[in-house]
Amino acid sequence: MIDFTSLFQAAKKSSRKLAFIGDEQVQKILFELADLMISQGDFLIRENKRDLERMDKANPMYDRLLLTQERIEGIAQEMRQVAKLPSPLFLPLEEKVLPNGLFLEKITVPLGVIGIIYEARPNVTFDVFSLALKSGNGLILKGGSDADFSNRAIISLIYQILQKFEIPTDAYLLLPADRTATKALLEAVDEVDVIIPRGSQGLINYVRQHAKVPVIETGAGIVHTFVDEEADLEKAKAIIHNSKTRRPSVCNSLDCLLIHEKLLPNLGELIRPLLESKVKIYADEKAFASLPKNELIQEASEEHFGTEFLSLQLAIKTVRNLDEALEHIATYSSRHSEAIVSENQENLSRFLLEVDAAAVYANSSTAFTDGAQFGLGAEIGISTQKLHARGPMALKELTSYKWVVRGNGQIRT
Amino acid sequence: MIDFTSLFQAAKKSSRKLAFIGDEQVQKILFELADLMISQGDFLIRENKRDLERMDKANPMYDRLLLTQERIEGIAQEMRQVAKLPSPLFLPLEEKVLPNGLFLEKITVPLGVIGIIYEARPNVTFDVFSLALKSGNGLILKGGSDADFSNRAIISLIYQILQKFEIPTDAYLLLPADRTATKALLEAVDEVDVIIPRGSQGLINYVRQHAKVPVIETGAGIVHTFVDEEADLEKAKAIIHNSKTRRPSVCNSLDCLLIHEKLLPNLGELIRPLLESKVKIYADEKAFASLPKNELIQEASEEHFGTEFLSLQLAIKTVRNLDEALEHIATYSSRHSEAIVSENQENLSRFLLEVDAAAVYANSSTAFTDGAQFGLGAEIGISTQKLHARGPMALKELTSYKWVVRGNGQIRT
Repeated sequence: MIDFTSLFQAAKKSSRKLAFIGDEQVQKILFELADLMISQGDFLIRENKRDLERMDKANPMYDRLLLTQERIEGIAQEMRQVAKLPSPLFLPLEEKVLPNGLFLEKITVPLGVIGIIYEARPNVTFDVFSLALKSGNGLILKGGSDADFSNRAIISLIYQILQKFEIPTDAYLLLPADRTATKALLEAVDEVDVIIPRGSQGLINYVRQHAKVPVIETGAGIVHTFVDEEADLEKAKAIIHNSKTRRPSVCNSLDCLLIHEKLLPNLGELIRPLLESKVKIYADEKAFASLPKNELIQEASEEHFGTEFLSLQLAIKTVRNLDEALEHIATYSSRHSEAIVSENQENLSRFLLEVDAAAVYANSSTAFTDGAQFGLGAEIGISTQKLHARGPMALKELTSYKWVVRGNGQIRT
Repeated sequence: MIDFTSLFQAAKKSSRKLAFIGDEQVQKILFELADLMISQGDFLIRENKRDLERMDKANPMYDRLLLTQERIEGIAQEMRQVAKLPSPLFLPLEEKVLPNGLFLEKITVPLGVIGIIYEARPNVTFDVFSLALKSGNGLILKGGSDADFSNRAIISLIYQILQKFEIPTDAYLLLPADRTATKALLEAVDEVDVIIPRGSQGLINYVRQHAKVPVIETGAGIVHTFVDEEADLEKAKAIIHNSKTRRPSVCNSLDCLLIHEKLLPNLGELIRPLLESKVKIYADEKAFASLPKNELIQEASEEHFGTEFLSLQLAIKTVRNLDEALEHIATYSSRHSEAIVSENQENLSRFLLEVDAAAVYANSSTAFTDGAQFGLGAEIGISTQKLHARGPMALKELTSYKWVVRGNGQIRT
């Protein structure tokens, strides 16, 4: 029986020193780790094979689990990029002098200890380590059992480098890949400052149900694009095709096309590229009636709206005006990414203002909702809640702040 | 049986319009409400009496529950001040143009619907309404049963004004004062964006245990002040007395004095004003031995450290150096407010940097940890966690943000 509380307390205690490693040292550590993972590629690939052998090749997770020398080099390259980002620590957010002479400064500090619960993606282990080290946070990792050999190999390389630089390894834990560890982590109120689940909706729901530690929910994207009466149809055609087919398995991909009813005569042309890309269409009654017969097109039922397909499937809903589009989005959206295509400035403005989502787009593909695309430099996930961080979360979103107050004997009357 | 889900859904739906009331209108509403509460003072006081009659006058909550015409005028005055604060909505936080021409803007938006769970303090009902209205948020209030007549009277005045201005009243709910309502609120994941408990540690623990909705914990303050070897003893004496005795019942009041062992000969003089103010002292072995006999001074036991007294009691712990002080604080602090008194610049810097708390003070009383004192204009609570908001929470802390992305047909390759 592992004494998780002692492990967590040790992580918490050691984490207090991490903000003071110094950013130059952090950069060195990450560069050396990037080199080490490449030179130890054979070892990582060998251990990864032991995981792969236990998984059915037909399992969609198989590809996410797979490590190759080329992928390792990609991960190392990303680590070097994170290393070079500006440090997010001790940045002044506000400064003021009170009438009594007190000098107040609000500065960024690490969150403390971050728990990450994730599934069979060994690259996440390297990614979140580099973000945690860079932001001065301790880390408690709970990976999927499917990737356990890979994760153990990765953490052994991380520890090798940390020991060389005399950084306490117990501030970065990899938990055993079982549910007991998950439960202990979710309840570690005094030792863990935030838990970020990365993975399926099932995982996120489990975490939300059982966590006593604050959670930032990430990922789920039920994404709409509204093609308004005054849309530029060429733009609309390209945007819809791009946001549905570029990478259907990611959270910013399109799930439901909202079409202004006056554009129904153009709908066939608008979705032609989708059909060429073999996208299965679920069209509501009006839209279905307006389209020619095609084996890829069927009539939608209620379940198709508010569904995150994560595959080449798309729902289409006909609306009479902007208000109906806004209402549909408010009802079915997961508040991740939402778009309008229109040349009507008033409608664009209303959409951008009134739609409640992490990212709202005018005349653009939703495929840009991503930390790297937004110029944040890295990403630990895309938050779909409103507290603390919304949308792509990068280094800055892994910090909190504190008020530093300097006085000269001030007392309050 | 009340259908809470329907009520919450209606609140959520109506809350979508609140950001667009316009700040001029918001100001008018709050000014009229301030006038109305004064002109309806008799009504409020009469209903408040019905609550007071059910409570024992010896109950420490009695005074918090009591409304008088003077107090109502004070509440009205605070409401007018909130009305005049700058709107926290639609403020640009960041702007950038991506290489592909996309224009990104990160702007503040309301959180959505805020749940407040509080005890017998009717003024909170007016206070949080004004902050919610000003920040465009819907509100679900769960007040204490002890204050139910008062709260019902207050919400009736709020509704009277809202109706006059054609603002949907269902965006501002006062729930029945029973545990069924609390439970429903804590689980309303789809309708409520955040819950802020205001009250005792027992209430906060209950909320943390049962909430599925994100929570911001507020209030608990286990506060230390470290008097370093090189302290100015006159400053130290005034600071300790002020932070302990100004208002012992508030969260920023002093709970534990950490004294450098070289100052033990001065301890008697340092705490003389405390003894004059009848503060009961629990001194550790060394400190106890250094003090003259006094009926207010007894030897401390372990339970006195890490205790929030909220009354005229104080623990004293002797430390050999700054490191021991930092270690004690890291172990026992609730990360609310912590102070050092010293003229040694290096020790001041280390303390301010290394202590992990919402507010860290050098040579100042901790009594300043307060939204109004920090110049934030108002306060809905003092967060003791690190996510979203830390320390005093005011209007800005009641907002989230969204990314507004304007394009001209951009797709991602």
